[in-house]
Amino acid sequence: MTLNPNFQALKASYLFADIGKKVREYQAANPGADVIRLGIGDVTRPLPRASIEAMHKAVDDMARAETFVGYPTDAGIHFLEDAVIADYALRGVALAQDEIFLSDGAKSDTGNIGDIFGTDNVVAVCDPVYPVYVDTNVMAGRKIILLPCNAENDFAPPLPGEHADIVYLCSPNNPTGTAMDAAQLKAWVDWANAHGSVLLYDGAYEAFITEGLPRSIFEIPGARTCAIEFRSFSKTAGFTGVRCAYTVVPKELQCGGVSVNALWGRRQATKFNGVSYITQRGAEATFTPEGRAQVRANIAYYLNNAGTIRAGLQSLGFRVWGGVNSPYVWFAAKHGMGSWELFDLLLNEVQVVGTPGSGFGPAGKGYFRLTGFGTAERTAEAVERIRGRLG
Amino acid sequence: MTLNPNFQALKASYLFADIGKKVREYQAANPGADVIRLGIGDVTRPLPRASIEAMHKAVDDMARAETFVGYPTDAGIHFLEDAVIADYALRGVALAQDEIFLSDGAKSDTGNIGDIFGTDNVVAVCDPVYPVYVDTNVMAGRKIILLPCNAENDFAPPLPGEHADIVYLCSPNNPTGTAMDAAQLKAWVDWANAHGSVLLYDGAYEAFITEGLPRSIFEIPGARTCAIEFRSFSKTAGFTGVRCAYTVVPKELQCGGVSVNALWGRRQATKFNGVSYITQRGAEATFTPEGRAQVRANIAYYLNNAGTIRAGLQSLGFRVWGGVNSPYVWFAAKHGMGSWELFDLLLNEVQVVGTPGSGFGPAGKGYFRLTGFGTAERTAEAVERIRGRLG
Repeated sequence: MTLNPNFQALKASYLFADIGKKVREYQAANPGADVIRLGIGDVTRPLPRASIEAMHKAVDDMARAETFVGYPTDAGIHFLEDAVIADYALRGVALAQDEIFLSDGAKSDTGNIGDIFGTDNVVAVCDPVYPVYVDTNVMAGRKIILLPCNAENDFAPPLPGEHADIVYLCSPNNPTGTAMDAAQLKAWVDWANAHGSVLLYDGAYEAFITEGLPRSIFEIPGARTCAIEFRSFSKTAGFTGVRCAYTVVPKELQCGGVSVNALWGRRQATKFNGVSYITQRGAEATFTPEGRAQVRANIAYYLNNAGTIRAGLQSLGFRVWGGVNSPYVWFAAKHGMGSWELFDLLLNEVQVVGTPGSGFGPAGKGYFRLTGFGTAERTAEAVERIRGRLG
Repeated sequence: MTLNPNFQALKASYLFADIGKKVREYQAANPGADVIRLGIGDVTRPLPRASIEAMHKAVDDMARAETFVGYPTDAGIHFLEDAVIADYALRGVALAQDEIFLSDGAKSDTGNIGDIFGTDNVVAVCDPVYPVYVDTNVMAGRKIILLPCNAENDFAPPLPGEHADIVYLCSPNNPTGTAMDAAQLKAWVDWANAHGSVLLYDGAYEAFITEGLPRSIFEIPGARTCAIEFRSFSKTAGFTGVRCAYTVVPKELQCGGVSVNALWGRRQATKFNGVSYITQRGAEATFTPEGRAQVRANIAYYLNNAGTIRAGLQSLGFRVWGGVNSPYVWFAAKHGMGSWELFDLLLNEVQVVGTPGSGFGPAGKGYFRLTGFGTAERTAEAVERIRGRLG
């Protein structure tokens, strides 16, 4: 047998694994250290009460033969797709049930979507970028080009200067926290339609938008012929430990007369067996009035943390992006300090864990990411610790 | 952009989708018909009580910040891997924690595993075969050869007569219900080690073994250098609607000095984000004394159904395989009747849904599969209906 040779082109390990290792080593060497983790984008608030109640009920459904649900894909249940359709409708976006594909996570889907595309496609990603877009395409052997995002373009991805078949866009962005407005998205949709390219639009953080920006690429005219959208309950409703997401593939999206929707449907029917019934009931509950209010309260809590970080860093004279429509705060180190240099300084001297911007790509060099996903108390303390060292 | 051209080589639709369509059409035309479904291999018994209780507790854990669990892969939780290790140890198989990869299903894993292998590998599958092995490798563009299983070899897969790099083995087998003994497995392990090939061993039905056969390929000396094993809670514990499985990749499995374990770990870290904490707690509970007893009772129930089908068909003069170490009963149609011909006859005349053997590959022509996953009452009735028509 042979192994997939493209794996040799991957960087040796995954960014967050590297960070985890550094933190573990620090804690082993300093057992009493009080480390505050504002690095990886994991949530900390409990699940919305509405989801808890719905999942208890769903667990009970699985305890009785009359209400038991087997393979979700064969059970003919579509309550979650219907709830998603109703949610999109609130933004004026009309979707059909078979345009929504439930999954266990946007990470899985943004990686697995590559299965349906040729390996000869050129893939464009923002730089800095969520590493999954790059690594999954390296594994498939695709050529990758970078769209440099930086202080000059305010971390808004520029249209490609060379040919690109597939473009990953993430807005609000991970890691920079910036969000695109309707005009910026329209420029991308027009470009994709003009070039026969496809936009892979990662909207995992749409719930954090506060400034009236589009929540979905499908709010933009023309997107149905050129875009696939990924969404998740992970950051919206705190489902990182529950696993539920969905991908929207419009039927108008075609390539050489072949339906991309049908191809993704075939991929999922062959390599995936549906989302846990219990999970689906928990996710459905986030769309009820109570669920929505509870989700909004959690989002507000995280945004408040992000605001604390943003204001704190700005008061220290840092140039800061994000933290307004996003849980992520992105800032430039000062005095030419490198990303990992700042990581080590914050870990070793004030026991605050962030994410080195350079881990997200060459354009992230000299930048750093902190997240609003901690508790309010610990976030405030982290900011004070940073102030004490860098103020 | 271009699409993956290999998708054009796929058959137009998935076997079980075709069957579902036929049944829906029949029911639409005959609204009062009392259809008994013994086709698709979905379970019908409620979850074990131990799992229900564990999942309620886990849901409550997610309701409090102190016990909340985010990304399962980052949470440092390994209770389910530890329970799996202890379970393997009961069979004399020693595994390390990082040789066990949890997932949302064996279907996902048996498909996704292809990501780490070169597309130039020749893949051997049994004929008849679970369609996922074939379709996922067609999608990747690999050459596939068939290992004909038939009445002459008692549906035991013969060693390949030509070169094969990757071999899928499923025992107890889906669809034929036959199970390999230690000598047969040893022949495969020796062959794989001699040829530098890898065995992808699907043990999803191991809990149904009643005749003292090996439960794991790793009970066979030499398997750690040539085999990957897939297991699932779907058929064991009724988790088809809950989604939990695991794949074992031993560290001794290497290719050109590269660790296959490390490659799969990298694939999963990049394209997967772990199994729901609630699901993991439910799965863990199946290994407690109460959970084991409840699982055994469910398995015994399904095996009893399979025995009813097997005995009924044998009394009608059919040649029958399976149904002893498996929920699946496989039998040859009589009088030269084709698989789909028998499917239509049973659906239209006695309202029993089975699975046409020809849907599993050319060697399945003239065969038919029924499953023990129904209720005892309905299974007995289905057998009586068949007796009334074919007796």
